[in-house]
Amino acid sequence: MKNLIDIKRLKKEEITAIINRAAEFKAASQDPARGEINYTSGISDFARLGERLYRANSCSNKTACLMFFENSTRTKCSFAIAAQKLGMNIIDFNVQTSSLSKGETLKDTLDNLYYMGVNTVILRHSEDDMTERMSKEVKFPMAFINAGDGKSAHPTQALLDYMTMLEKLGTVEGKKIVIAGDVSHSRVAKSNLALLSKMGANVHFFAPEYFTPKNKEEFNVIWEDDYNTAITDADVVMLLRIQTERLSGAETEKAKHYSEKYCLTTERLEKYAPNAILMHPGPVNRDIEVSSELLDSPKGKTILEQARNGVYVRMAVLENAAG
Amino acid sequence: MKNLIDIKRLKKEEITAIINRAAEFKAASQDPARGEINYTSGISDFARLGERLYRANSCSNKTACLMFFENSTRTKCSFAIAAQKLGMNIIDFNVQTSSLSKGETLKDTLDNLYYMGVNTVILRHSEDDMTERMSKEVKFPMAFINAGDGKSAHPTQALLDYMTMLEKLGTVEGKKIVIAGDVSHSRVAKSNLALLSKMGANVHFFAPEYFTPKNKEEFNVIWEDDYNTAITDADVVMLLRIQTERLSGAETEKAKHYSEKYCLTTERLEKYAPNAILMHPGPVNRDIEVSSELLDSPKGKTILEQARNGVYVRMAVLENAAG
Amino acid sequence: MKNLIDIKRLKKEEITAIINRAAEFKAASQDPARGEINYTSGISDFARLGERLYRANSCSNKTACLMFFENSTRTKCSFAIAAQKLGMNIIDFNVQTSSLSKGETLKDTLDNLYYMGVNTVILRHSEDDMTERMSKEVKFPMAFINAGDGKSAHPTQALLDYMTMLEKLGTVEGKKIVIAGDVSHSRVAKSNLALLSKMGANVHFFAPEYFTPKNKEEFNVIWEDDYNTAITDADVVMLLRIQTERLSGAETEKAKHYSEKYCLTTERLEKYAPNAILMHPGPVNRDIEVSSELLDSPKGKTILEQARNGVYVRMAVLENAAG
Repeated sequence: MKNLIDIKRLKKEEITAIINRAAEFKAASQDPARGEINYTSGISDFARLGERLYRANSCSNKTACLMFFENSTRTKCSFAIAAQKLGMNIIDFNVQTSSLSKGETLKDTLDNLYYMGVNTVILRHSEDDMTERMSKEVKFPMAFINAGDGKSAHPTQALLDYMTMLEKLGTVEGKKIVIAGDVSHSRVAKSNLALLSKMGANVHFFAPEYFTPKNKEEFNVIWEDDYNTAITDADVVMLLRIQTERLSGAETEKAKHYSEKYCLTTERLEKYAPNAILMHPGPVNRDIEVSSELLDSPKGKTILEQARNGVYVRMAVLENAAG
Repeated sequence: MKNLIDIKRLKKEEITAIINRAAEFKAASQDPARGEINYTSGISDFARLGERLYRANSCSNKTACLMFFENSTRTKCSFAIAAQKLGMNIIDFNVQTSSLSKGETLKDTLDNLYYMGVNTVILRHSEDDMTERMSKEVKFPMAFINAGDGKSAHPTQALLDYMTMLEKLGTVEGKKIVIAGDVSHSRVAKSNLALLSKMGANVHFFAPEYFTPKNKEEFNVIWEDDYNTAITDADVVMLLRIQTERLSGAETEKAKHYSEKYCLTTERLEKYAPNAILMHPGPVNRDIEVSSELLDSPKGKTILEQARNGVYVRMAVLENAAG
Repeated sequence: MKNLIDIKRLKKEEITAIINRAAEFKAASQDPARGEINYTSGISDFARLGERLYRANSCSNKTACLMFFENSTRTKCSFAIAAQKLGMNIIDFNVQTSSLSKGETLKDTLDNLYYMGVNTVILRHSEDDMTERMSKEVKFPMAFINAGDGKSAHPTQALLDYMTMLEKLGTVEGKKIVIAGDVSHSRVAKSNLALLSKMGANVHFFAPEYFTPKNKEEFNVIWEDDYNTAITDADVVMLLRIQTERLSGAETEKAKHYSEKYCLTTERLEKYAPNAILMHPGPVNRDIEVSSELLDSPKGKTILEQARNGVYVRMAVLENAAG
């Protein structure tokens, strides 16, 4: 039983072990017709490796419960596919039609799920630190995996981002990684900062004033004032999603202003950071954070590679939890 | 094809056979780290027993359909987990996005599901006796399992409650079992009364006047007038859920009055029924039916054990249905 | 990777291959207690055939994604059961709780699902030609199966209807097949016309004026003016569903008028087309398109047989897509 609550709690070696395991799963699953990565050994070796990997895992009699209190495509499908690949049973907990709607507390629901045989809970919630809170309130050995809570943390996103960077750059040590956009609402920025700093990267944040958190001084990061300067010679430009669905009234102006001033175009990226990898946690707002042209160019493919790596990282995390 | 519509239709031997089979499944599934029950044989024997049990069952090419017209956590997840453990395929029928919303009758929908290969329907519905009605209207050999309908019956709840009592008491014969709370809306009370009377228990009901059914004389049970007298020297105190989500306007006063007068506290239980087992079908309204202190004490664990036994009872019922 | 977008794209031999494969699956799955078809070989042969069939297929490590933007019972459950029988993993994509609700385009969602490992998308959508559009926009080798889009096409429905006719008639060549009802909104009519014409049937359409498409001249079909004449000596009478849930205000009169004038009764069928097979894609509006008496008579069973054949046709289509 191993929780994944927050990147801050993981040691460097634990992060590396998860990524290595994810890479093993990826190698074993790789469809050559689909893959961009070139492995030297032939497909039959992978088939054998795959068999060994799957036989080794201890998940096949375990039950994972997906509890998503917020909308999701990538994270939820990715966890579901990862659990299926590991042979786990899945309960897709429907928040709306559950007894939570009768007033049962989440803690009491979780206690019951544990007694019914759920081994791992994958939780997404709008409240900060909900996964941690539940992992403390529930006194039974059930694993908790944070699939994004409030503005606090999204650890599997940071892990899959890190895996993607390693594939492209070999290492993040000493690399300039710029995270730009709506930092104030972003759990992705926080979890990435925690992981990348630990691994020796130089992390820079850029946000316009209206997307800058009030407690910006508490972030152990280099804050940039100018977008173009920020991305200059970056190894990675990671854009954050403007959560347009949460903006209302006068706030919708922010998205408009942001897209006019900061939308990343092919031209801008070519001029300031021609070698940078382009990343985004998705879903992308086309022509707000990134121009459609850039997104649909080869540079945009890294964003899809992030989605792919998410499946393998989550397999590694789920296997850990079931162990 | 074997329906489970109502406890009243089951013979004593049929009830005992279901419980025995559930206990076999439980023994085979038991995780020693989680279990409280001590079995004399070692874990490797259980592994072998498990294999035998699972190989023996005939469910692996069968399809069960979950049709829940009312919200549920325990019952629905429990049936889903049970079906997965038996290797059944599951269709989680979404009432809202089905053709029922286009005006198709439930009977016609069920006929179609039968022809598409559904062998077992697990039905929860707000109308009384809906499972029975459908089992009669559908002329094909599809098994119907009542997962709670209207105020009429909830047979798997009564079976899991009985299994839990047997584990704690050895037998219910001659035991004083008190069922207290909102009897007027309770299918749980009815199914438990039917089962426990058949098995020789002395069943007592207590309800405040506003939760007493109008046809109370038709119940073959001892009605108690005073709560404290009711629970005195009870072997089991089973509390019913106040369905707070269905109370509106002046009715919400009832929950308030109930909690002030009848909330079961550690002190009260110690005073009147120190040896009683505490049971509740869930979800518990904390500090309305039971005090949080009592619920979180060792006495409260039996309620979670009920949830656990639900999985094994439902495995036995599903296996019966598929047979 | 093989799409199924529209019947028009299929060659005669491709249609025949799908039906033959579906018939193999049906033979292998047939439960004798349930089946009406008599096979000469014994059940043990089918068990062996079944094993061979299932072992042969290449779907067991594939993932299908159900994306239903419109309500459905038959089509959705049928695809889910078919995928389960083939051992595929299934992602039941919930449109409401996905990132589509955050403004992500369907094309971007699909790109991401492809990268996460989805091999086959089963799409139902309210817009015409949406499956074709997506199959063109998504540049990755993911199979697209049209589960009904707009008023344009519903190819698996036509395939299962054709399979059902073959079982009853041996061939459709030269047969009189009458399709009657709300033609103007019907993708079922269009896909059936495309398939049945290709296979040499004489297809006749009847619709009251208010259910006749404006572009009726573009349909390569015999339009009938009188209902009774239309069905006279028909080999097949296929009724279309009046989509009562889409009619509002004055339009609800149409359903009333239709039922008074055109409801197919036992008497009418006996008089004009005593040997005809009765078909309907479901869900049937009882006493609007067909009288309850006729529906519940042996003649009505063919409609359920259509639902059954849907599972086997979809197995064949999914296997094709995964191949």
